[in-house]
Amino acid sequence: MQQYIYHFDEGSKDMKGLLGGKGANLAEMTTLGLQVPPGFTLTTEYCIQFLKNESHAPNFKEKIHQAVEKVEQQMGEKFGDADKPLLFSVRSGARVSMPGMMDTVLNLGLNDTTIQGLIKQTSNERFAYDAYRRFINMYGNVVMGVSHHHFEAKFVEFKKSKGYEDDLEMTPEDLRALVGIYKETVKEHCGNDFPDDPWDQLQGALDAVFQSWNNKRAITYRNINKIAHDWGTAVNVQTMVFGNMGETSGTGVAFTRDPSTGEKGYFGEYLMNAQGEDVVAGIRTPKQIADLKNQMPEVYKELTDIFDKLEAHYKDMQDIEFTIEKGKLYILQTRTGKRTGKAAVRIALDMIDEGLIDKKTAILRVDANSLEPMLHPTVDPKADSEVISKGLPASPGAACGRVVFTADDAVSAKQNNEKCVLVRHETSPEDIAGMNSAEGILTSTGGMTSHAAVVARGMGKCCVAGAGDIKINYAEKKFICGDVEVKEGDIITICGTSGEVMLGEVATIPPQLDEYFEKLMGWADEIRTIKVRTNAETANDAQNAINFGAEGIGLCRTEHMFFDQERILHVREMILSDTHEQRIKAIDKLLPYQKDDFIKIFKIMDDLPVTIRLLDPPLHEFVPHDDEEIEKVAAELGMTSEEVKEKIVDLEEVNPMLGHRGCRLGVSYPELSIMQAKAIIMAALEVQKDGKKVIPEIMVPLVSLSEEFTNLEKKIRKHADKLIASSGIELEYKVGTMIEIPRACIVADRIAEKAEFFSFGTNDLTQMAFGFSRDDAGKFLGTYQEKGLIKSDPFSVLDQEGVGALMKIAVEKAKSVRKDIKLGICGEHGGEPSSVEFCINLGFDYVSCSPFRVPIARLAAAQAELKKND
Amino acid sequence: MQQYIYHFDEGSKDMKGLLGGKGANLAEMTTLGLQVPPGFTLTTEYCIQFLKNESHAPNFKEKIHQAVEKVEQQMGEKFGDADKPLLFSVRSGARVSMPGMMDTVLNLGLNDTTIQGLIKQTSNERFAYDAYRRFINMYGNVVMGVSHHHFEAKFVEFKKSKGYEDDLEMTPEDLRALVGIYKETVKEHCGNDFPDDPWDQLQGALDAVFQSWNNKRAITYRNINKIAHDWGTAVNVQTMVFGNMGETSGTGVAFTRDPSTGEKGYFGEYLMNAQGEDVVAGIRTPKQIADLKNQMPEVYKELTDIFDKLEAHYKDMQDIEFTIEKGKLYILQTRTGKRTGKAAVRIALDMIDEGLIDKKTAILRVDANSLEPMLHPTVDPKADSEVISKGLPASPGAACGRVVFTADDAVSAKQNNEKCVLVRHETSPEDIAGMNSAEGILTSTGGMTSHAAVVARGMGKCCVAGAGDIKINYAEKKFICGDVEVKEGDIITICGTSGEVMLGEVATIPPQLDEYFEKLMGWADEIRTIKVRTNAETANDAQNAINFGAEGIGLCRTEHMFFDQERILHVREMILSDTHEQRIKAIDKLLPYQKDDFIKIFKIMDDLPVTIRLLDPPLHEFVPHDDEEIEKVAAELGMTSEEVKEKIVDLEEVNPMLGHRGCRLGVSYPELSIMQAKAIIMAALEVQKDGKKVIPEIMVPLVSLSEEFTNLEKKIRKHADKLIASSGIELEYKVGTMIEIPRACIVADRIAEKAEFFSFGTNDLTQMAFGFSRDDAGKFLGTYQEKGLIKSDPFSVLDQEGVGALMKIAVEKAKSVRKDIKLGICGEHGGEPSSVEFCINLGFDYVSCSPFRVPIARLAAAQAELKKND
Repeated sequence: MQQYIYHFDEGSKDMKGLLGGKGANLAEMTTLGLQVPPGFTLTTEYCIQFLKNESHAPNFKEKIHQAVEKVEQQMGEKFGDADKPLLFSVRSGARVSMPGMMDTVLNLGLNDTTIQGLIKQTSNERFAYDAYRRFINMYGNVVMGVSHHHFEAKFVEFKKSKGYEDDLEMTPEDLRALVGIYKETVKEHCGNDFPDDPWDQLQGALDAVFQSWNNKRAITYRNINKIAHDWGTAVNVQTMVFGNMGETSGTGVAFTRDPSTGEKGYFGEYLMNAQGEDVVAGIRTPKQIADLKNQMPEVYKELTDIFDKLEAHYKDMQDIEFTIEKGKLYILQTRTGKRTGKAAVRIALDMIDEGLIDKKTAILRVDANSLEPMLHPTVDPKADSEVISKGLPASPGAACGRVVFTADDAVSAKQNNEKCVLVRHETSPEDIAGMNSAEGILTSTGGMTSHAAVVARGMGKCCVAGAGDIKINYAEKKFICGDVEVKEGDIITICGTSGEVMLGEVATIPPQLDEYFEKLMGWADEIRTIKVRTNAETANDAQNAINFGAEGIGLCRTEHMFFDQERILHVREMILSDTHEQRIKAIDKLLPYQKDDFIKIFKIMDDLPVTIRLLDPPLHEFVPHDDEEIEKVAAELGMTSEEVKEKIVDLEEVNPMLGHRGCRLGVSYPELSIMQAKAIIMAALEVQKDGKKVIPEIMVPLVSLSEEFTNLEKKIRKHADKLIASSGIELEYKVGTMIEIPRACIVADRIAEKAEFFSFGTNDLTQMAFGFSRDDAGKFLGTYQEKGLIKSDPFSVLDQEGVGALMKIAVEKAKSVRKDIKLGICGEHGGEPSSVEFCINLGFDYVSCSPFRVPIARLAAAQAELKKND
Repeated sequence: MQQYIYHFDEGSKDMKGLLGGKGANLAEMTTLGLQVPPGFTLTTEYCIQFLKNESHAPNFKEKIHQAVEKVEQQMGEKFGDADKPLLFSVRSGARVSMPGMMDTVLNLGLNDTTIQGLIKQTSNERFAYDAYRRFINMYGNVVMGVSHHHFEAKFVEFKKSKGYEDDLEMTPEDLRALVGIYKETVKEHCGNDFPDDPWDQLQGALDAVFQSWNNKRAITYRNINKIAHDWGTAVNVQTMVFGNMGETSGTGVAFTRDPSTGEKGYFGEYLMNAQGEDVVAGIRTPKQIADLKNQMPEVYKELTDIFDKLEAHYKDMQDIEFTIEKGKLYILQTRTGKRTGKAAVRIALDMIDEGLIDKKTAILRVDANSLEPMLHPTVDPKADSEVISKGLPASPGAACGRVVFTADDAVSAKQNNEKCVLVRHETSPEDIAGMNSAEGILTSTGGMTSHAAVVARGMGKCCVAGAGDIKINYAEKKFICGDVEVKEGDIITICGTSGEVMLGEVATIPPQLDEYFEKLMGWADEIRTIKVRTNAETANDAQNAINFGAEGIGLCRTEHMFFDQERILHVREMILSDTHEQRIKAIDKLLPYQKDDFIKIFKIMDDLPVTIRLLDPPLHEFVPHDDEEIEKVAAELGMTSEEVKEKIVDLEEVNPMLGHRGCRLGVSYPELSIMQAKAIIMAALEVQKDGKKVIPEIMVPLVSLSEEFTNLEKKIRKHADKLIASSGIELEYKVGTMIEIPRACIVADRIAEKAEFFSFGTNDLTQMAFGFSRDDAGKFLGTYQEKGLIKSDPFSVLDQEGVGALMKIAVEKAKSVRKDIKLGICGEHGGEPSSVEFCINLGFDYVSCSPFRVPIARLAAAQAELKKND
């Protein structure tokens, strides 16, 4: 067996695999010469051996004795000594942080003998017995399996017997008595005596912490976070220091910069005469780190020197725990500090100026996803709020307004300048206007890529989806959530970043893009080679995306254009037509509208490419539901209401996702695709005539057979070429397809014979590849994540193993027949960093995402590029 | 340019590619020395050249003259001659038959000069002018583009002006006058004179027939039948012979054996003094071929000698057209005769005995699909029937009974010994008992693999699905179809082979399996190497399948077992449980039922393997719908009806096909899968104890992630092993999965690490790979077939290009980690011949299909084996 015990002066920060994160950093700081309470680390390798063999190495006791002896020498104290007793903390520390998942024992080494030494050293009997009592509780629980509530019960009983109201009334004698009671409690519940021998205590604690690697919550945590079960945990045995040894003792936590804004300057809190848990518990109000300067100027100087040293050493903002024991400063932990996106950007950029890191490191250091909150208003974390439900954080930002239950009511509210939140079971395309009018959307069903979620993200509107405990009653215009009843007109606030639903108005913070952000984006744009486009179908969205740096439209859906009040009647006429002639008549009426839509978009996008997708959803999404509208359509078509209703029933589908939609509509009703193609080309010609350059790309959706594509492509080109020829204007256009059906990946070579571009529609591709309905998968995907079957929602993060492999097949096949085929992605994944990286590595030309994710994609693309060159 | 004109004495039957099917057979017969009216064939190659260049070869006229001269010499007649005029038919003839798709011109060569010769030769002025009139009509239409109805109008007008009631009142003079009128009609509508020069006529006819290769209906036909557009058609120019030249002339069609039963003996019909079209038109009743023996014994002798000669030559049953012109016999066509499955089997076997063909040829010659009607009762084709609608021929056979609209009514009818047909929009699993009680099932929606279709085929019950023009009114218990109203209790007959729905009782023929069939099956079994299993879940189905030769169960669905009246309440308790405890309680109640189900099946299957699939459908398929049942469940669970209703709403899904089903249920509710696994093993142990050998294979459905499989496999094995160990009985079992999700194909290697077998569920795999819902695809798949985008319904015939390629990926990946993995198919395709062949070539161990398709699969498997060795 290799060396399995490392003293803190033997390791370094690069040994995380062996010593765990905590152990490696303790070693690093020790080597740096910082005042770290001495100790040693048992390795992760040893943990795995121990768990496998269920026994220790032959000379384990001896080795432990040697290790403890070395600490005794360093401290001038002795383990188990009646005079100067050495006390230990025993803590787990895995390769990656698993906060709270495994066990810890503090104050180890106390017994009826060593307590005397502690009293002598601290001259504080009350403190000593309290430490002893806590040790028995903690050890009894963690090592001996006696539930915490048994100790709690005895404590309460004792206080009651004394008539105490407050813990502080407990005398040292009381606490000593409790020590006895606690030991009896242990005996009573586990059958064994509490071990008095410190060596037995240490052995027991080490075994328990090793074994806690395999406790249920740790296994679950590793499943969820895809942490290997055979990594094991290291165990750190460290000399105890106490921040609660009187007025010259204290404890605190500090960041080397402001984790919220990134501003340079020490940031943190401390409490004198307190332990770490007191800072966390929030019973006493901690002081700002700057106050220490007045209170203990020397310690403050020493501490801030250490802050500077650690930051310079780690070249990143540090999150540091420290304890002052009788005026002496100890550093207990350092780690890279968590920060907001805003802070991340500023810190990275400042550190370049400070010469700490180079540009590449700075760019790679900002988590692209962390930019998201900067781009939306957010709920003020300091505001009071009453959270009544939690759904999925489907589209970030915050929204506050009066509750409405129908899209029409949302539109009315907007007209009356009233802010509202639209609450629905789930939204459908006919709710678009209402969604656009609302501040935010709350649904009780549906997942991260439900209609509400996708549309809201596209609009940059806040959305909480699938808040399952909300029971909506449309008839009475209210929803119930537990005991709370929320009626139409009541105000709620929703947070699309946390998924929380709150009663009343909660303060929010507007988005602020500072110069740091702009600078970082500028660099990202210099580095990345892939283009970033946006998914947008309104002039508003398109403009928004341009402002965020989009370089074209990768997905312009045309169905949303069909829901406009003026045209929906014609759409319905088209759908409900009995004859080809009726249909043609209705379609002809739609052409001028479509043309105008495209003119608007082309004008905004100027000389950037615009990919327009032909009508995609099943036609039943457009049919009228209320009697008045049905009568209107019937009258227009010269049919009876009954006949129209029959047609509507005929259009219903069992699995609309797999139904009569996408290019299947175009094959059935070629006149529809032709009208759309003509509108696109006519619009492009008109804008081109005005001296702007237009690059339209006509996209055929939902192709599964090369024959589907060829069938429509031929018709589209025929009509487009005719229009262009007779206009006398030069216009280039492309015809391509969306790859979103597994079969299309398999026959991509055949499709690519005629298709000039592929845009991967990874939402549908994920649905079909997994056989997961994005509207229904919420019912089981949560369980899948909990049980560790999947790491992340495949609708948010591209499943590279399955869906990605299909994409790879498609790319290889397509390139085999058309080397220069243009490749892009326009699913939700187009703005997700790891998916962007995947697309770059597959050789894509562009990614396309919601306007609000464009900056994220830009940064992620630059990062992927930098990693590629590593 | 190569030789592009072949006289009939220059070609052979092996030149179909160049001369077309008709031309090659005319040449073959000529070479054989049969009396074939002389002529020549212009090749398909020339057709393509001509169509491409839009002009003839430089020396074309000269070559045609030479070809005609050769015929003149053979016939002793002259083209355009006033005395002995030679007349031609000009017919298309492509490589494969495209009946009625291209054009034909008869009597070519007639003009005002040659008509005199025809009159002289036939001494029949009326016949001659009638031929002349018909020629102008046909030529005017085909070559000059004048619509047939213009001629028809003139004909009617003329008859009216003469006051004739009947065509036979027309005198030779009348017909001569009509010739003039027809020529004027041509001039009037196309602007050109009718060509009098026979050479011009010939040139025009040749061009027109060539061009007819590209007429719209021919292109559509080729699209639908996937015939290459660049094959071209040959054109046959053949001397006219006339069966209507008096009482020693005649015409007929004969088969060399009975095409319906396969019995040896000449079979056919003829008419004296008639043309081919008269036999077809059915105005006069033709005579049986045997009668010719008395009427013209010499001709009969000559004809039957030719029959024998042709059959011996082609070594297959022939379908022969002949004409007798003034006592002289001419053979106009021979081709392989179409036949029923029954006849195919008998003919193949008889021909072995006759030494005509060997066993291999015989086995390959029977179309496996043609066996299907033999296995089911069929509608008597001779019976009168009033067809009111036509749906999809979803499950073959015929059924007759009183109409019922609910499953319960079907069950009641059965109990009262009344035959019924269950009529539904679509069936669902809760209709199983009703479907089982009905004679047949008729649905107004759904396709070939809708629930009704799949279940009916499994039961061997007749089903017509998706009869879209039937409007069902459940409330009034009736359906309307056009003008016809059919009420509950009315009798209808449905034919699952044609898809027809008929009013009243129509006579049917029961299935008859003769010794020929058994003999062929015996041979097939000797040859094939792949096993044929069946999809069965009831003792009845299993027994049926064994009788048809099944060698195990490839798919035993367990959901159908859940619908039994006794247990559905427990199933609903399980589904609607609020707590884990409630659920366990309900599931425990189901275990004994499940165990009994499996015991029954294991006993019947004796030592054959049985693959049992864990519960697959989404749970909402089981929930109660009427208030009474809801109250019953609510009471059992101590819930209110309202709460139960809310839970039912919660269970609803937008796309149930992609919802919470299959192994996803097992992941969410492991106790359910464990109960099923335990029931399987307990049943197997019990049957094994009785000395039978049981080979249970536990199948996890709908796996898309290897983690899903591993999760359940571990639990299944743990419980199974425990049961086996404590029983003291030896039992082998396998745990495997259904591969029916595209992603599973892509990660098949990872799944195969733990899965001992794969069974390809090609129904769902087809749905997901294409993104086609089998319940909804009926709305567009018809159009796809019409437009030639697909050749066949991918739910019936495996799509080898896409779905098959995914299967291939899966097989390769799986074998890379588990060389001996057991591979099977249990989708609808398991009984479809081309799909069976595909599976054999992929190295599958078995195919599994509905009991009634087992014989088809057995034969198809033998055929594939024979082809493999070619």
